[in-house]
Amino acid sequence: MSWLPSLITNTPEDGYNLALNLSRMAVKMTQPDDAARARMRPDYSNNADSLTMASHVVATNFQTVAQANGYWRD
Amino acid sequence: MSWLPSLITNTPEDGYNLALNLSRMAVKMTQPDDAARARMRPDYSNNADSLTMASHVVATNFQTVAQANGYWRD
Amino acid sequence: MSWLPSLITNTPEDGYNLALNLSRMAVKMTQPDDAARARMRPDYSNNADSLTMASHVVATNFQTVAQANGYWRD
Amino acid sequence: MSWLPSLITNTPEDGYNLALNLSRMAVKMTQPDDAARARMRPDYSNNADSLTMASHVVATNFQTVAQANGYWRD
Amino acid sequence: MSWLPSLITNTPEDGYNLALNLSRMAVKMTQPDDAARARMRPDYSNNADSLTMASHVVATNFQTVAQANGYWRD
Amino acid sequence: MSWLPSLITNTPEDGYNLALNLSRMAVKMTQPDDAARARMRPDYSNNADSLTMASHVVATNFQTVAQANGYWRD
Repeated sequence: MSWLPSLITNTPEDGYNLALNLSRMAVKMTQPDDAARARMRPDYSNNADSLTMASHVVATNFQTVAQANGYWRD
Repeated sequence: MSWLPSLITNTPEDGYNLALNLSRMAVKMTQPDDAARARMRPDYSNNADSLTMASHVVATNFQTVAQANGYWRD
Repeated sequence: MSWLPSLITNTPEDGYNLALNLSRMAVKMTQPDDAARARMRPDYSNNADSLTMASHVVATNFQTVAQANGYWRD
Repeated sequence: MSWLPSLITNTPEDGYNLALNLSRMAVKMTQPDDAARARMRPDYSNNADSLTMASHVVATNFQTVAQANGYWRD
Repeated sequence: MSWLPSLITNTPEDGYNLALNLSRMAVKMTQPDDAARARMRPDYSNNADSLTMASHVVATNFQTVAQANGYWRD
Repeated sequence: MSWLPSLITNTPEDGYNLALNLSRMAVKMTQPDDAARARMRPDYSNNADSLTMASHVVATNFQTVAQANGYWRD
Protein backbone atom coordinates (compact mmCIF):
# COMPACT_ATOMS: atom_id res chain seq x y z
CA MET A 1 0.00 0.00 0.00
CA SER A 2 1.35 3.38 -1.00
CA TRP A 3 1.80 6.08 1.68
CA LEU A 4 0.34 8.46 -0.93
CA PRO A 5 -2.44 6.67 -2.80
CA SER A 6 -4.21 9.89 -3.81
CA LEU A 7 -4.26 13.67 -3.39
CA ILE A 8 -8.05 13.64 -3.12
CA THR A 9 -9.55 14.11 0.33
CA ASN A 10 -13.08 14.40 1.60
CA THR A 11 -12.68 17.69 3.42
CA PRO A 12 -10.38 20.73 3.58
CA GLU A 13 -9.20 19.62 7.00
CA ASP A 14 -8.21 16.21 5.67
CA GLY A 15 -6.40 18.04 2.87
CA TYR A 16 -4.51 20.14 5.36
CA ASN A 17 -3.46 17.01 7.24
CA LEU A 18 -2.26 15.50 3.97
CA ALA A 19 -0.22 18.67 3.33
CA LEU A 20 1.37 18.22 6.76
CA ASN A 21 2.15 14.63 5.92
CA LEU A 22 3.70 15.55 2.56
CA SER A 23 5.89 18.09 4.36
CA ARG A 24 7.11 15.55 6.89
CA MET A 25 7.72 12.82 4.33
CA ALA A 26 10.49 14.76 2.56
CA VAL A 27 12.20 15.20 5.93
CA LYS A 28 11.84 11.48 6.63
CA MET A 29 13.25 10.56 3.23
CA THR A 30 16.27 12.83 3.73
CA GLN A 31 16.84 11.68 7.32
CA PRO A 32 15.36 8.16 7.62
CA ASP A 33 16.77 7.55 11.11
CA ASP A 34 13.83 7.91 13.55
CA ALA A 35 16.11 8.55 16.52
CA ALA A 36 17.99 11.32 14.70
CA ARG A 37 14.73 13.07 13.87
CA ALA A 38 13.52 12.71 17.45
CA ARG A 39 16.73 14.32 18.73
CA MET A 40 16.04 17.43 16.61
CA ARG A 41 12.46 17.86 17.78
CA PRO A 42 13.18 19.99 20.91
CA ASP A 43 15.27 22.35 18.78
CA TYR A 44 12.78 23.26 16.10
CA SER A 45 9.65 22.94 18.21
CA ASN A 46 10.95 25.65 20.54
CA ASN A 47 12.25 27.99 17.87
CA ALA A 48 9.78 30.41 16.33
CA ASP A 49 11.59 30.74 12.99
CA SER A 50 11.86 26.97 12.63
CA LEU A 51 8.13 26.67 13.18
CA THR A 52 7.44 29.45 10.67
CA MET A 53 9.62 27.69 8.11
CA ALA A 54 7.74 24.45 8.70
CA SER A 55 4.44 26.27 8.29
CA HIS A 56 5.66 27.64 4.94
CA VAL A 57 6.28 24.14 3.63
CA VAL A 58 2.81 23.06 4.73
CA ALA A 59 1.35 26.12 2.96
CA THR A 60 3.15 25.16 -0.25
CA ASN A 61 1.91 21.58 -0.10
CA PHE A 62 -1.58 22.74 0.83
CA GLN A 63 -1.66 24.76 -2.42
CA THR A 64 -1.12 21.52 -4.31
CA VAL A 65 -3.67 19.50 -2.35
CA ALA A 66 -6.31 22.25 -2.46
CA GLN A 67 -5.94 22.63 -6.22
CA ALA A 68 -6.12 18.85 -6.69
CA ASN A 69 -9.45 18.89 -4.86
CA GLY A 70 -10.91 21.85 -6.73
CA TYR A 71 -10.79 23.68 -3.40
CA TRP A 72 -13.62 21.48 -2.09
CA ARG A 73 -15.98 24.05 -3.60
CA ASP A 74 -19.16 21.95 -3.55
CA MET B 1 -17.01 20.73 14.06
CA SER B 2 -13.93 21.05 11.83
CA TRP B 3 -11.56 24.00 12.37
CA LEU B 4 -11.50 24.25 8.58
CA PRO B 5 -14.98 23.56 7.25
CA SER B 6 -14.43 25.44 3.99
CA LEU B 7 -12.00 27.68 2.08
CA ILE B 8 -14.88 29.87 0.90
CA THR B 9 -15.29 33.24 2.60
CA ASN B 10 -17.66 36.14 2.05
CA THR B 11 -15.03 38.83 1.61
CA PRO B 12 -11.32 39.25 0.79
CA GLU B 13 -10.71 40.39 4.36
CA ASP B 14 -12.28 37.21 5.73
CA GLY B 15 -10.10 35.28 3.30
CA TYR B 16 -7.01 37.03 4.58
CA ASN B 17 -7.95 36.13 8.14
CA LEU B 18 -8.40 32.52 7.08
CA ALA B 19 -4.91 32.61 5.52
CA LEU B 20 -3.55 33.85 8.85
CA ASN B 21 -5.34 31.03 10.61
CA LEU B 22 -3.99 28.42 8.20
CA SER B 23 -0.48 29.74 8.83
CA ARG B 24 -0.85 29.51 12.59
CA MET B 25 -2.44 26.07 12.54
CA ALA B 26 0.68 24.39 11.14
CA VAL B 27 2.69 25.97 13.96
CA LYS B 28 0.15 24.75 16.49
CA MET B 29 0.21 21.23 15.08
CA THR B 30 4.01 21.12 15.23
CA GLN B 31 4.18 22.64 18.71
CA PRO B 32 0.85 21.84 20.43
CA ASP B 33 1.97 23.15 23.84
CA ASP B 34 0.27 26.54 24.34
CA ALA B 35 2.80 27.65 26.95
CA ALA B 36 5.74 26.82 24.70
CA ARG B 37 4.28 28.90 21.89
CA ALA B 38 3.57 31.78 24.28
CA ARG B 39 7.20 31.75 25.43
CA MET B 40 8.39 32.27 21.83
CA ARG B 41 6.08 35.19 21.13
CA PRO B 42 8.37 38.01 22.43
CA ASP B 43 11.20 36.66 20.25
CA TYR B 44 9.54 36.62 16.87
CA SER B 45 7.20 39.57 17.46
CA ASN B 46 10.20 41.83 18.03
CA ASN B 47 12.33 40.53 15.20
CA ALA B 48 11.78 42.05 11.77
CA ASP B 49 12.97 39.00 9.83
CA SER B 50 10.76 36.68 11.87
CA LEU B 51 7.78 38.89 11.07
CA THR B 52 8.67 38.98 7.37
CA MET B 53 8.93 35.19 7.33
CA ALA B 54 5.52 34.93 8.97
CA SER B 55 4.09 37.34 6.40
CA HIS B 56 5.47 35.12 3.61
CA VAL B 57 3.56 32.13 4.93
CA VAL B 58 0.36 34.17 5.08
CA ALA B 59 0.96 35.33 1.49
CA THR B 60 1.33 31.71 0.36
CA ASN B 61 -1.86 30.64 2.11
CA PHE B 62 -3.69 33.72 0.82
CA GLN B 63 -2.87 32.60 -2.73
CA THR B 64 -4.74 29.39 -2.03
CA VAL B 65 -7.72 31.04 -0.36
CA ALA B 66 -8.01 33.77 -3.00
CA GLN B 67 -7.96 31.23 -5.82
CA ALA B 68 -10.55 29.09 -4.03
CA ASN B 69 -12.82 32.12 -3.93
CA GLY B 70 -12.31 33.14 -7.55
CA TYR B 71 -10.64 36.26 -6.16
CA TRP B 72 -14.02 37.53 -4.95
CA ARG B 73 -14.40 39.07 -8.41
CA ASP B 74 -18.14 39.74 -8.34
CA MET C 1 -15.08 49.85 6.00
CA SER C 2 -12.80 46.89 5.32
CA TRP C 3 -9.05 47.48 4.87
CA LEU C 4 -9.32 45.01 1.97
CA PRO C 5 -12.59 45.63 0.14
CA SER C 6 -11.36 44.09 -3.12
CA LEU C 7 -8.34 42.65 -4.93
CA ILE C 8 -9.30 44.50 -8.11
CA THR C 9 -7.27 47.58 -9.00
CA ASN C 10 -7.31 49.96 -11.93
CA THR C 11 -3.64 49.64 -12.85
CA PRO C 12 -0.66 47.32 -12.35
CA GLU C 13 0.98 49.98 -10.19
CA ASP C 14 -2.06 50.12 -7.92
CA GLY C 15 -1.92 46.33 -7.78
CA TYR C 16 1.71 46.44 -6.73
CA ASN C 17 0.86 48.89 -3.97
CA LEU C 18 -1.90 46.57 -2.80
CA ALA C 19 0.63 43.70 -2.71
CA LEU C 20 2.86 45.86 -0.52
CA ASN C 21 -0.08 46.57 1.76
CA LEU C 22 -1.01 42.88 2.00
CA SER C 23 2.60 42.12 2.97
CA ARG C 24 2.64 44.73 5.72
CA MET C 25 -0.76 43.79 7.09
CA ALA C 26 0.38 40.33 8.20
CA VAL C 27 3.26 41.96 10.06
CA LYS C 28 0.86 44.40 11.69
CA MET C 29 -1.49 41.63 12.73
CA THR C 30 1.34 39.63 14.29
CA GLN C 31 2.88 42.67 16.00
CA PRO C 32 0.05 45.20 16.50
CA ASP C 33 2.16 47.56 18.64
CA ASP C 34 3.07 50.53 16.41
CA ALA C 35 6.02 51.54 18.59
CA ALA C 36 7.48 48.02 18.51
CA ARG C 37 7.32 47.96 14.72
CA ALA C 38 8.90 51.41 14.51
CA ARG C 39 11.80 50.23 16.68
CA MET C 40 12.59 47.45 14.20
CA ARG C 41 12.59 49.69 11.13
CA PRO C 42 16.28 50.79 11.27
CA ASP C 43 17.32 47.12 11.52
CA TYR C 44 15.60 45.72 8.47
CA SER C 45 15.75 48.86 6.34
CA ASN C 46 19.54 48.79 6.53
CA ASN C 47 20.00 45.09 6.02
CA ALA C 48 20.12 43.85 2.43
CA ASP C 49 18.86 40.34 3.22
CA SER C 50 15.94 41.71 5.23
CA LEU C 51 14.97 43.89 2.29
CA THR C 52 15.26 40.96 -0.12
CA MET C 53 13.04 38.85 2.14
CA ALA C 54 10.49 41.67 2.24
CA SER C 55 10.59 41.92 -1.55
CA HIS C 56 9.92 38.17 -1.78
CA VAL C 57 6.72 38.55 0.22
CA VAL C 58 5.59 41.40 -2.03
CA ALA C 59 6.32 39.24 -5.09
CA THR C 60 4.17 36.44 -3.67
CA ASN C 61 1.28 38.78 -2.94
CA PHE C 62 1.68 40.45 -6.32
CA GLN C 63 1.15 37.03 -7.97
CA THR C 64 -2.23 36.88 -6.26
CA VAL C 65 -3.25 40.44 -7.10
CA ALA C 66 -2.07 40.21 -10.71
CA GLN C 67 -3.98 36.98 -11.28
CA ALA C 68 -7.11 38.48 -9.66
CA ASN C 69 -6.91 41.30 -12.19
CA GLY C 70 -6.31 39.12 -15.23
CA TYR C 71 -2.88 40.74 -15.41
CA TRP C 72 -4.51 44.02 -16.51
CA ARG C 73 -4.23 42.66 -20.06
CA ASP C 74 -6.65 45.06 -21.79
CA MET D 1 3.85 58.26 -16.10
CA SER D 2 3.63 55.06 -14.04
CA TRP D 3 6.81 53.07 -13.35
CA LEU D 4 4.68 49.99 -14.11
CA PRO D 5 2.33 50.81 -16.99
CA SER D 6 1.89 47.17 -18.02
CA LEU D 7 3.07 43.60 -17.41
CA ILE D 8 3.11 42.92 -21.15
CA THR D 9 6.51 42.80 -22.84
CA ASN D 10 7.61 42.05 -26.37
CA THR D 11 10.09 39.31 -25.53
CA PRO D 12 10.96 36.88 -22.72
CA GLU D 13 14.16 38.82 -22.10
CA ASP D 14 12.22 42.06 -21.65
CA GLY D 15 9.95 40.15 -19.29
CA TYR D 16 12.92 38.96 -17.27
CA ASN D 17 14.17 42.53 -16.99
CA LEU D 18 10.73 43.61 -15.79
CA ALA D 19 10.85 40.86 -13.15
CA LEU D 20 14.21 42.24 -11.99
CA ASN D 21 12.70 45.70 -11.81
CA LEU D 22 9.68 44.49 -9.83
CA SER D 23 12.07 42.83 -7.38
CA ARG D 24 14.09 45.98 -6.88
CA MET D 25 11.07 48.25 -6.56
CA ALA D 26 9.89 46.62 -3.32
CA VAL D 27 13.35 47.17 -1.87
CA LYS D 28 13.28 50.79 -2.98
CA MET D 29 9.85 51.35 -1.47
CA THR D 30 10.94 49.86 1.86
CA GLN D 31 14.26 51.75 1.89
CA PRO D 32 13.77 54.89 -0.25
CA ASP D 33 17.14 56.41 0.70
CA ASP D 34 19.44 55.92 -2.32
CA ALA D 35 22.59 56.33 -0.25
CA ALA D 36 21.46 53.72 2.28
CA ARG D 37 20.84 51.21 -0.50
CA ALA D 38 24.21 51.99 -2.08
CA ARG D 39 25.96 51.30 1.24
CA MET D 40 24.45 47.80 1.36
CA ARG D 41 25.50 46.86 -2.17
CA PRO D 42 29.02 45.53 -1.36
CA ASP D 43 27.53 43.29 1.31
CA TYR D 44 24.96 41.43 -0.71
CA SER D 45 26.79 41.50 -4.03
CA ASN D 46 29.67 39.59 -2.47
CA ASN D 47 27.60 37.10 -0.52
CA ALA D 48 26.46 33.99 -2.36
CA ASP D 49 23.37 33.41 -0.21
CA SER D 50 22.26 37.03 -0.61
CA LEU D 51 22.52 36.67 -4.37
CA THR D 52 20.60 33.40 -4.32
CA MET D 53 17.86 35.04 -2.26
CA ALA D 54 17.69 37.89 -4.77
CA SER D 55 17.47 35.40 -7.62
CA HIS D 56 14.55 33.70 -5.86
CA VAL D 57 12.60 36.96 -5.79
CA VAL D 58 13.26 37.50 -9.49
CA ALA D 59 12.06 33.94 -10.19
CA THR D 60 8.84 34.61 -8.31
CA ASN D 61 8.20 37.85 -10.19
CA PHE D 62 9.14 36.20 -13.50
CA GLN D 63 6.37 33.63 -12.89
CA THR D 64 3.90 36.51 -12.79
CA VAL D 65 5.27 38.30 -15.84
CA ALA D 66 5.58 35.11 -17.89
CA GLN D 67 1.99 34.11 -17.13
CA ALA D 68 0.77 37.63 -17.97
CA ASN D 69 2.39 37.26 -21.38
CA GLY D 70 1.08 33.77 -22.09
CA TYR D 71 4.70 32.65 -21.92
CA TRP D 72 5.39 34.42 -25.23
CA ARG D 73 4.31 31.19 -26.91
CA ASP D 74 3.78 32.54 -30.45
CA MET E 1 18.92 8.35 -22.10
CA SER E 2 17.79 11.54 -20.37
CA TRP E 3 17.66 11.64 -16.54
CA LEU E 4 14.33 13.43 -17.02
CA PRO E 5 12.49 11.85 -19.93
CA SER E 6 9.05 12.97 -18.71
CA LEU E 7 7.15 14.61 -15.86
CA ILE E 8 4.36 12.05 -16.16
CA THR E 9 4.23 9.33 -13.51
CA ASN E 10 1.82 6.49 -12.83
CA THR E 11 1.05 7.36 -9.24
CA PRO E 12 1.24 10.28 -6.79
CA GLU E 13 3.98 8.46 -4.90
CA ASP E 14 6.07 8.14 -8.05
CA GLY E 15 5.46 11.84 -8.63
CA TYR E 16 6.69 12.67 -5.16
CA ASN E 17 9.84 10.64 -5.79
CA LEU E 18 10.37 12.54 -9.02
CA ALA E 19 10.01 15.81 -7.09
CA LEU E 20 12.71 14.59 -4.70
CA ASN E 21 14.92 13.75 -7.64
CA LEU E 22 14.38 17.15 -9.27
CA SER E 23 15.35 18.78 -5.97
CA ARG E 24 18.56 16.81 -5.69
CA MET E 25 19.56 17.29 -9.31
CA ALA E 26 19.99 21.05 -8.95
CA VAL E 27 22.28 20.41 -6.00
CA LYS E 28 24.25 17.86 -8.03
CA MET E 29 24.59 20.27 -10.95
CA THR E 30 25.85 23.05 -8.68
CA GLN E 31 28.22 20.75 -6.77
CA PRO E 32 29.06 17.85 -9.12
CA ASP E 33 31.74 16.39 -6.82
CA ASP E 34 30.20 13.30 -5.17
CA ALA E 35 32.68 13.35 -2.28
CA ALA E 36 31.98 17.00 -1.52
CA ARG E 37 28.25 16.31 -1.33
CA ALA E 38 28.82 13.28 0.87
CA ARG E 39 30.87 15.38 3.30
CA MET E 40 27.91 17.76 3.75
CA ARG E 41 25.39 15.03 4.47
CA PRO E 42 25.94 14.76 8.26
CA ASP E 43 25.49 18.53 8.58
CA TYR E 44 22.13 18.97 6.92
CA SER E 45 20.68 15.60 7.84
CA ASN E 46 21.07 16.44 11.53
CA ASN E 47 19.84 20.01 11.33
CA ALA E 48 16.09 20.56 11.53
CA ASP E 49 16.10 23.82 9.56
CA SER E 50 18.18 22.30 6.79
CA LEU E 51 15.70 19.45 6.51
CA THR E 52 12.77 21.87 6.47
CA MET E 53 14.44 23.87 3.70
CA ALA E 54 14.96 20.69 1.71
CA SER E 55 11.32 19.76 2.22
CA HIS E 56 10.29 23.18 0.87
CA VAL E 57 12.16 22.55 -2.37
CA VAL E 58 10.49 19.16 -2.73
CA ALA E 59 7.09 20.81 -2.13
CA THR E 60 7.81 23.34 -4.89
CA ASN E 61 8.83 20.64 -7.35
CA PHE E 62 5.88 18.47 -6.34
CA GLN E 63 3.56 21.34 -7.34
CA THR E 64 5.02 21.14 -10.84
CA VAL E 65 4.85 17.36 -11.10
CA ALA E 66 1.34 17.16 -9.65
CA GLN E 67 0.04 19.77 -12.08
CA ALA E 68 1.76 18.00 -14.99
CA ASN E 69 -0.14 14.85 -14.05
CA GLY E 70 -3.53 16.51 -13.59
CA TYR E 71 -3.20 15.59 -9.91
CA TRP E 72 -3.71 11.91 -10.80
CA ARG E 73 -7.43 12.61 -10.45
CA ASP E 74 -8.74 9.48 -12.18
CA MET F 1 20.87 37.48 -30.18
CA SER F 2 18.94 37.38 -26.89
CA TRP F 3 20.18 35.14 -24.07
CA LEU F 4 16.51 34.20 -23.61
CA PRO F 5 14.88 33.93 -27.02
CA SER F 6 12.11 31.60 -25.81
CA LEU F 7 10.81 29.58 -22.88
CA ILE F 8 9.95 26.68 -25.17
CA THR F 9 12.24 23.66 -25.09
CA ASN F 10 12.17 20.31 -26.82
CA THR F 11 12.42 18.17 -23.71
CA PRO F 12 11.91 18.35 -19.93
CA GLU F 13 15.66 18.04 -19.45
CA ASP F 14 16.28 21.04 -21.71
CA GLY F 15 13.63 22.89 -19.71
CA TYR F 16 15.40 22.06 -16.48
CA ASN F 17 18.65 23.39 -17.89
CA LEU F 18 16.87 26.58 -18.90
CA ALA F 19 15.55 26.90 -15.33
CA LEU F 20 19.12 26.60 -14.08
CA ASN F 21 20.19 29.28 -16.51
CA LEU F 22 17.38 31.62 -15.46
CA SER F 23 18.44 31.16 -11.84
CA ARG F 24 22.06 32.01 -12.59
CA MET F 25 21.23 35.00 -14.77
CA ALA F 26 19.70 36.98 -11.90
CA VAL F 27 22.86 36.39 -9.90
CA LYS F 28 24.97 37.53 -12.85
CA MET F 29 22.89 40.65 -13.31
CA THR F 30 23.20 41.55 -9.62
CA GLN F 31 26.92 40.77 -9.49
CA PRO F 32 28.28 41.19 -13.05
CA ASP F 33 31.92 40.79 -12.02
CA ASP F 34 33.00 37.29 -13.10
CA ALA F 35 35.93 37.21 -10.66
CA ALA F 36 33.72 38.19 -7.73
CA ARG F 37 31.31 35.37 -8.53
CA ALA F 38 34.17 32.91 -8.90
CA ARG F 39 35.49 33.86 -5.45
CA MET F 40 32.14 32.95 -3.87
CA ARG F 41 31.90 29.54 -5.51
CA PRO F 42 33.86 27.53 -2.87
CA ASP F 43 31.62 28.99 -0.15
CA TYR F 44 28.22 28.06 -1.48
CA SER F 45 29.25 24.88 -3.27
CA ASN F 46 30.43 23.41 0.02
CA ASN F 47 27.52 24.56 2.13
CA ALA F 48 24.44 22.36 2.19
CA ASP F 49 21.99 25.16 2.96
CA SER F 50 23.39 27.32 0.16
CA LEU F 51 22.90 24.46 -2.26
CA THR F 52 19.35 23.87 -1.03
CA MET F 53 18.57 27.54 -1.48
CA ALA F 54 19.94 27.41 -5.02
CA SER F 55 17.83 24.33 -5.73
CA HIS F 56 14.73 26.21 -4.53
CA VAL F 57 15.32 28.95 -7.08
CA VAL F 58 15.71 26.38 -9.84
CA ALA F 59 12.46 24.72 -8.71
CA THR F 60 10.65 28.06 -8.92
CA ASN F 61 11.97 28.77 -12.40
CA PHE F 62 11.24 25.21 -13.50
CA GLN F 63 7.57 25.78 -12.58
CA THR F 64 7.53 28.64 -15.08
CA VAL F 65 9.32 26.75 -17.84
CA ALA F 66 7.28 23.58 -17.36
CA GLN F 67 4.01 25.50 -17.53
CA ALA F 68 5.20 27.38 -20.64
CA ASN F 69 5.77 24.02 -22.30
CA GLY F 70 2.46 22.47 -21.28
CA TYR F 71 4.54 20.07 -19.18
CA TRP F 72 5.78 18.38 -22.36
CA ARG F 73 2.71 16.18 -22.11
CA ASP F 74 2.73 14.76 -25.66
